[in-house]
Amino acid sequence: MAPPRLSGAFAPAVTPFTPGLDIDFEAYAAHCLWLQRHGAGLAIFGTNSEANSLSLAERMMLLDRLGGRGIDFARTLPGTGCSALPDTVALSRHALLHGCAGVLVLPPFFYKGVSDDGLFAYYSEVIERVGDANLRLFLYHIPAFSGVPISLGLIERLAKRYPEQLAGVKDSNGDWGNIEAMLRNFPQLSIFPASESFLSRAMPLGAAGCISATINVNPAAISSLCANWAEQGAALAQQQVDRVRQIFQRYPMIAALKWAISHYRDQRQWQIQRPPLSPLSAQQQASLLAELEAAGFAMPALDTP
Amino acid sequence: MAPPRLSGAFAPAVTPFTPGLDIDFEAYAAHCLWLQRHGAGLAIFGTNSEANSLSLAERMMLLDRLGGRGIDFARTLPGTGCSALPDTVALSRHALLHGCAGVLVLPPFFYKGVSDDGLFAYYSEVIERVGDANLRLFLYHIPAFSGVPISLGLIERLAKRYPEQLAGVKDSNGDWGNIEAMLRNFPQLSIFPASESFLSRAMPLGAAGCISATINVNPAAISSLCANWAEQGAALAQQQVDRVRQIFQRYPMIAALKWAISHYRDQRQWQIQRPPLSPLSAQQQASLLAELEAAGFAMPALDTP
Repeated sequence: MAPPRLSGAFAPAVTPFTPGLDIDFEAYAAHCLWLQRHGAGLAIFGTNSEANSLSLAERMMLLDRLGGRGIDFARTLPGTGCSALPDTVALSRHALLHGCAGVLVLPPFFYKGVSDDGLFAYYSEVIERVGDANLRLFLYHIPAFSGVPISLGLIERLAKRYPEQLAGVKDSNGDWGNIEAMLRNFPQLSIFPASESFLSRAMPLGAAGCISATINVNPAAISSLCANWAEQGAALAQQQVDRVRQIFQRYPMIAALKWAISHYRDQRQWQIQRPPLSPLSAQQQASLLAELEAAGFAMPALDTP
Repeated sequence: MAPPRLSGAFAPAVTPFTPGLDIDFEAYAAHCLWLQRHGAGLAIFGTNSEANSLSLAERMMLLDRLGGRGIDFARTLPGTGCSALPDTVALSRHALLHGCAGVLVLPPFFYKGVSDDGLFAYYSEVIERVGDANLRLFLYHIPAFSGVPISLGLIERLAKRYPEQLAGVKDSNGDWGNIEAMLRNFPQLSIFPASESFLSRAMPLGAAGCISATINVNPAAISSLCANWAEQGAALAQQQVDRVRQIFQRYPMIAALKWAISHYRDQRQWQIQRPPLSPLSAQQQASLLAELEAAGFAMPALDTP
C-alpha cells in the first residue's frame, strides 16, 4: 500500500554535540521526541541539522538508534541528498528500510551550473537504484546553500516520469512567486515552503504544510497553524508565529536555535556546532534573549507530556 | 624526516566509468601511470576527477589499488576535502597511511557565508585529528565550485599556527592578483595556480608549479615548462600549452577532457560522467576535434614508454 500523503509541520531537528564534537545522542533523541509530542513531524538531517557536517555512518547510526526510541517514522522525512550519487542512494535505501515516510533529496551540490538534463539523470538514477515502489522522494530547492536550483521544468519532467515516486518539493528559497507557481502547477505534489510565514497564503492554495527551522523551538504553535489555518483566530496565530520567526531570522539561524534550546533547557551541549559553523557571540546571546523575553517567548519543558 | 617540498605539474586525473557508472579501475590506473610517465605528479580526487561524485569507500579503494600499480605516492596529492569533518579526517589519514606527499583540502562546501574563524576551526580540527607530524596540507581555493573562498587572512593564520603542516595552496580562482599576493606574502608555502597559463608569470615569483585540468591531456609539455621556465624557448612553450588550454576552455572542461581521451585512445568508457555532469553533445565533439586537429594536437599513446 502506498504511504499516505504527508502534511503538517516538519522540523529539521538540530543536532547537539559533545565538547569533543561527537553527537550527543541522548539529547538528540529527547529533542526529536519532544518535537513529535508537540505535533511536529521530523525532517531530520536537514540544513539546520548540520546534516552535511555528519558522516554517512553517523546519519545511519542516528536513524538506527531513533528507531528504538519510539520515533514515528511514518512522519519522518530524513534528508538523504549528498554530492555523490552512491551516498544518496545508500542513505535513501536505509531510510526506506526503516519505513520513513519519504526522503528529502538535495541536488548534488558541488558542481555548479549543471544542466536540467544532468539533474534529471541524477534524480532518475537515485529513484531507479533505490528501486522501491514505496519510495517517496521530495526535491529540495535551496539554491543559497546548494548553488543548484531545482527549476519548475525539472519538477515537471520528474513528476511525469515518476508519478508515484516524485512526491513533493521543499522550497527554501523564500520567493513567494516560485512557491505559488509550484502550488498551481503541481497540485498532485506535496509542496512545503520552508517558512511558517507563508502558511496563511500557501495553505489555501493546497500547500502540504511547512518544513521550517523555527519548528525546532516553536513546534506546537506552528503545527497547530498548519492544521487550523482556515479556522477563526488563524490570522492572530500567524502573527504570533511570525513574530518568533522574525526574531530568530535576525541571527545566524542554526546558532540561534541551538543557543535558545541550550538556554531554555539548561543543556550546554546545544551550543556546540561542528566547524565551519560557529556559536553566537556573547553579545548575540544577550540580545537574542532580550528579544525573546520581550516577545514573551517560552519553550515548553522537555518533559511536558 | 619531513617530506620534500612538492613542485611541478600535478594532474587532477579524470575518472573513467563503466556504462553502469562504476569506476573502470583498469582504465583509471593506466591513465595515472601514463600521466606519471609523462612527468606529471598526481593530484587525484580533484574537481576534474569528479571526486565529489565518488563515495568515501570508492576514493579509498582507488588509492588502495593504485598502490599495487607502481604509482609514486611521493608525488601524489589526493583531494580529501569533504563537507563533513569526519570524512575529511578519514580520507586524509588514509592518504597519509599510503605515504602520499600531502592532501589537497577543499573547505567544507555546503554552508555558505561562513566566517574565517569557522574555517580556521575546521582546518585546525582536521590537522589536530589527523595528528601526524608528516601531514602536509594544501588549501584549495575554488570559490566558483565550493562557494567558500580561502582568504589571505585565513592562510596567514593557519600558516602561523601550523608552520609544519600548512604546506601550500591551490588557487583555482584564475585571478592573477590573488595568485601574486599569495606568492609574495607566503614564500614559505608551495603555491600552485590551477592553470599552466600562469606559469611564465608565477614561476619567477616562486610558484611551485601548477595543478591543472589540461595536464590530463598535455602532461609532458606542461611538466617540461614547469621545469624549464627560465630556459631559452620557454616563451614559445608557454604559447603552445596556452593554445591547447584555450581550446579545452571553450567547452565544459571535464566532458571535453574525457571526450579527447576517449577519442585518442579509442576507449569509450572515458566519455561517461556520473550525473549531474553530462557528456559533450555530438556537435561539441565534432567542433572540439576540428579545433584540436587544426592546432596539430596529439596525445602520446597509452603505451609510450
